[in-house]
Amino acid sequence: MKLRAKDLDISSGGPLIAVLNGKDAALLDLHVMDRIKIKKGAKIETVVVDIAQGKIVPQGKVGIFEEVIGSLKLRNNDEVEISIARKPLSLDYIKKKLDGIKLSKKEIDQIVWDIVHNKLSQVELAYFVAACYTNVMSTEETILLTKSMVEHGDMLKLKRYPVIDKHSIGGIPGNRTTLVIVPIIAAAGFTMPKTSSRSITSPAGTADTMEVLANVVFPIKKMKEIIMKTNGCIIWGGALNLAPADDKIIAVERPLEIDAESQLLASIMAKKHSVSSTHILIDIPSGKDAKVKNKIEALRLKKEFEKIGKRLKKHVRVLITDGSQPIGNGIGPALEARDVLWLLKRDPRRPVDLEKKCLVMCSEIFDLLGVKGGYKKALDILNSGNAYRKMVEIIKAQNGREVAAEDIKIGKYSFDAVSAKSGRVIDIDNIIISRIARIAGAPHDKGSGLYLYKHIGDQVRKGDKLFTIYSESEHEFEYARDFAKKNKGFLVR
Amino acid sequence: MKLRAKDLDISSGGPLIAVLNGKDAALLDLHVMDRIKIKKGAKIETVVVDIAQGKIVPQGKVGIFEEVIGSLKLRNNDEVEISIARKPLSLDYIKKKLDGIKLSKKEIDQIVWDIVHNKLSQVELAYFVAACYTNVMSTEETILLTKSMVEHGDMLKLKRYPVIDKHSIGGIPGNRTTLVIVPIIAAAGFTMPKTSSRSITSPAGTADTMEVLANVVFPIKKMKEIIMKTNGCIIWGGALNLAPADDKIIAVERPLEIDAESQLLASIMAKKHSVSSTHILIDIPSGKDAKVKNKIEALRLKKEFEKIGKRLKKHVRVLITDGSQPIGNGIGPALEARDVLWLLKRDPRRPVDLEKKCLVMCSEIFDLLGVKGGYKKALDILNSGNAYRKMVEIIKAQNGREVAAEDIKIGKYSFDAVSAKSGRVIDIDNIIISRIARIAGAPHDKGSGLYLYKHIGDQVRKGDKLFTIYSESEHEFEYARDFAKKNKGFLVR
Repeated sequence: MKLRAKDLDISSGGPLIAVLNGKDAALLDLHVMDRIKIKKGAKIETVVVDIAQGKIVPQGKVGIFEEVIGSLKLRNNDEVEISIARKPLSLDYIKKKLDGIKLSKKEIDQIVWDIVHNKLSQVELAYFVAACYTNVMSTEETILLTKSMVEHGDMLKLKRYPVIDKHSIGGIPGNRTTLVIVPIIAAAGFTMPKTSSRSITSPAGTADTMEVLANVVFPIKKMKEIIMKTNGCIIWGGALNLAPADDKIIAVERPLEIDAESQLLASIMAKKHSVSSTHILIDIPSGKDAKVKNKIEALRLKKEFEKIGKRLKKHVRVLITDGSQPIGNGIGPALEARDVLWLLKRDPRRPVDLEKKCLVMCSEIFDLLGVKGGYKKALDILNSGNAYRKMVEIIKAQNGREVAAEDIKIGKYSFDAVSAKSGRVIDIDNIIISRIARIAGAPHDKGSGLYLYKHIGDQVRKGDKLFTIYSESEHEFEYARDFAKKNKGFLVR
Repeated sequence: MKLRAKDLDISSGGPLIAVLNGKDAALLDLHVMDRIKIKKGAKIETVVVDIAQGKIVPQGKVGIFEEVIGSLKLRNNDEVEISIARKPLSLDYIKKKLDGIKLSKKEIDQIVWDIVHNKLSQVELAYFVAACYTNVMSTEETILLTKSMVEHGDMLKLKRYPVIDKHSIGGIPGNRTTLVIVPIIAAAGFTMPKTSSRSITSPAGTADTMEVLANVVFPIKKMKEIIMKTNGCIIWGGALNLAPADDKIIAVERPLEIDAESQLLASIMAKKHSVSSTHILIDIPSGKDAKVKNKIEALRLKKEFEKIGKRLKKHVRVLITDGSQPIGNGIGPALEARDVLWLLKRDPRRPVDLEKKCLVMCSEIFDLLGVKGGYKKALDILNSGNAYRKMVEIIKAQNGREVAAEDIKIGKYSFDAVSAKSGRVIDIDNIIISRIARIAGAPHDKGSGLYLYKHIGDQVRKGDKLFTIYSESEHEFEYARDFAKKNKGFLVR
C-alpha cells in the first residue's frame, strides 16, 4: 500500500512507531502494536503500528514518529510503501522466559539485537524486564546477556595490561569518586579508560561534572588516543555505542523501580567488558535511600559480581560502602567539579569524606593489582600534586583548559537553608537533597545545585546554615527555594 | 504551575496522558512516566507524563490526549493547574505480585480501581499481566479479582431464579451459537440475560452479528426491561460498564499473545457474575488454531472454571468442543445472521454443524437445570417455530424488525475461491479464513465476509467452490481477493 508520510513531530524516546488511519489499517488487517515495514527508496524499516481514529492522520497518510523520520531520512509528504511485517522473533523468546524456560545464546542475541535496533515496543520491553525479574536469569544466562550486549555495540580494544575500571552503583548525591580516582591511578602509571554516564534522575552524572572542565563527547578512536597519551580519560559513555541495549532497558524499569538483578549485573559488566578492562572495582553504596537498601542485599550482589567476574575472566573486587548520605559537599555539576579541584589541589575547603572514600577505593585497586601499601601510595600521589597534574593533562587531552576552582561559574541566585533547631544531624534524605538540586536546574544548568555544610553526626545550632541553593535561573531558583522551605531533607535532634 | 492546554488530537486508547515541555518538566523535576495532577476548575485528574523535546508542546503549554480532554472537559488554550502527583498505590502491589507474594483483597481492589480509572500506563499494566502470568494467581486471588472486577462496574440485578448464561472461548470463525441458544432457552421459559462482545481481532463478535438484526446498545435499565418482557436479550456488553477492567487488561496481552489464565477465568466469570447468572455453560473449543490449543490445556481450564464456579456459588458446566475449523458457513456479521435466521426458520440451507453444536449446548444447559431429555426438548422448540418466534420477539424488544434471511444485505462484490485439485478437505486454517473476511471489510462493513461451502472431511473436485468472498467496497474487495488467491486456508489431499 502506498501512503504519504506525515511528520508528526513526536518522539517516542526509542521505539520506532508509525500511525495509520483506521481505514488503511483495516485494509491490511492491522491492529495497534502490530508491525509494518515502511519502504522509501532502498531504505526499509520495521516499525510498530499505532492507529488514529481522529483527524491527525487522514486516510492515505502515515504519521511518522521522529525516530523513524531519522532512520529513513523521510520528509513530509514523501511517498512510502507499507507492507505487513512479521513480529520480531524475540517476542517468542521473551514469552519463553516468562514461562520460566532458560534462554539460549541465539535467543538472547536475538532479543538484544531487537532492543538495540528499536524493534520492541515499551510494553514488549516491559515483558522482558518482568520475565528476567521473576524468573531470575542463571549465571550462564547473565554472562550470555553481558557478552551479547557487548557484541551488539562497539568495543574499545587496548593492547595494554592491566586495564583498570571502576563502577559506583548510583543513588548517592555527590559521590564524584571517578574524577579523583582516575588521575591517581593514571598518575601511578596504570591505564584507566573510564566511561561515565550522564544524569537520568540525579542532579549530576560523572559525565555532566567532567563536562564543566573538559569535553566528554568523543568518538572511540579519539578516546583511544587520549588514553594512549595520558593513561586515562573520563568520557561520556552515551555517545560511544558501548553496549547500547542497556539504556533502553533501564527506561522501562523506572515505573515500578524494578531492578532485574541479572540486568543490573549484565549492564555494568558489559560496559566494563566493552572497554577491555581486566581489573574492576565495584562500589556498592548501601543505605535506605540508596539503590541498594541494606547490607544483606549488598552482600548478595557482591557475590554475584564476583561470580560473573570470574566467569568473564576479570579480576573483580567489590566494596560495600556507606550510602546513608551525600558524599562531598557540592551537589550539581559545577559545585561537584569545584569540590574535585579543591581536593586534587589540596585546598583546605576540600571535602574530607569524598577524599577518604577515594583513597580507600584506590587502595583496593592497588591491592587488586598486587601493589602493596596502596592507601599511602594514593595519598602520596595526591599530596605530591601528581594527581592534580595528571588531571590537568587529561582535561587538556579532552580539549579543556586548566581552571582555578574559584573560577568555576556557580549560579548567581542563592538561598541559605538554615536549621530550625539546635542539635545533631541524625539523617540526611538523599532523595530530597537530589530533588532540590534538580529543581534548581541541575544538571541541565551546570552552575545550579546546592552546597552542603553539614553531614550526619555534625552538631548544629538553630540558624546555622545547612546548605546553600545555587541556581542560574530566577524562575527555577524560586521553585527550588519554595520546595526547600517545606522540605529540607535534614533531621536534627 | 499554571499552563495552557493544547489539544493534541491523539488518543492513547485508554491511559490518561499529558505531554509537558522539557523545561517545564525540569521545573517540577518530572520524568517520562511520572504522574501529575491537572486541575481545571473543580475537576481534577491524575495523568501520566510524557515529555516533548520538539516544538509540538512549547514551554507554558501542556499537550493533552483525547482521554483527558474528555475527562476534564477541556478546550484548547484553557488554563490548567499542574502539580506533582504520587504514584498510584497499585504499583507497589504489582511489584509485590512480581515478587511472588500473594495479594490481599485490598491490594487487588486497588489495582482494579486504578485500571478502571485509567490510572496505569500500558507498561505498568504489562507488568501486572506478566506478574499474574508468571506467578500464577491462587484460586483465592482469582476469586478476589473476579469479585473486584464486578464491584468496580455496574451490575444487573434480577429477581429471578435460575438465571442462565453461556460463554464460548474465542478463536473460531462463525460459531454464532448465542443467537440460537438464547431464543431456545428463553422460549423454554428460562431467563438468559446475555451480553456479548464485539470483534477485536475476529471477523465478527456476537454483538456485531446481532446488530444486523436489532439494536445492541442499551443502558442497563432498558436491558432489564427487555429481559422482563422476553426472558432474554443479546446485547453488547461493551456499552454496559459491566466489569470494565477486563477490556483494558486484554489490550496489553496482545503483543505477546499472553493469556494469564487467572485473568481469563476472572474476566469471563466476572462478566457472568455481573448479570446475576446462577447457571453457566462454558464452551471451550480446542484446536490448533483456537485459543485453547489442545485437550490437556482444555481439561485443565475446565477444572479451574469448575473450581471458581463452586467458590462463587454458581452452577457451572464446562464443555470441550471441536475447535479445528469454522462453525457454520457464513463468516462476517450479515452472513452469520443469515445462517442464524435460516437455522431458526428450519430452512434447508441452514448450517447443520452449527445447529448440532447449539442443540448439544442447550441439552447441557437443560441438564444443569435438572430438565431431562434436553436435546429433544431443544430440537422440539426449534422445529415448532417457538425459537424463531422468540427470536423475533427479542429482535423487536431490541428495536429491530422481522426480516427474511434473503433480505439481509450482503456485499455486492464477490469472488469464488475454487479448489486447485480434487480430494478431501484435510484442514481449514481458522486464522487465514478470519483474515480474508476481515480484509474484505468485516466486521466494520456488516455485509462483508465470506461463505464456506466445504468443511473438513468433505470431498471436493478440482474447480469446486470452497468459499465466496463478499465485500461492500471495491477497494477492500480487491485486497481480499488478492490475498485469497495466495492463501486459501484449505488443505485438500
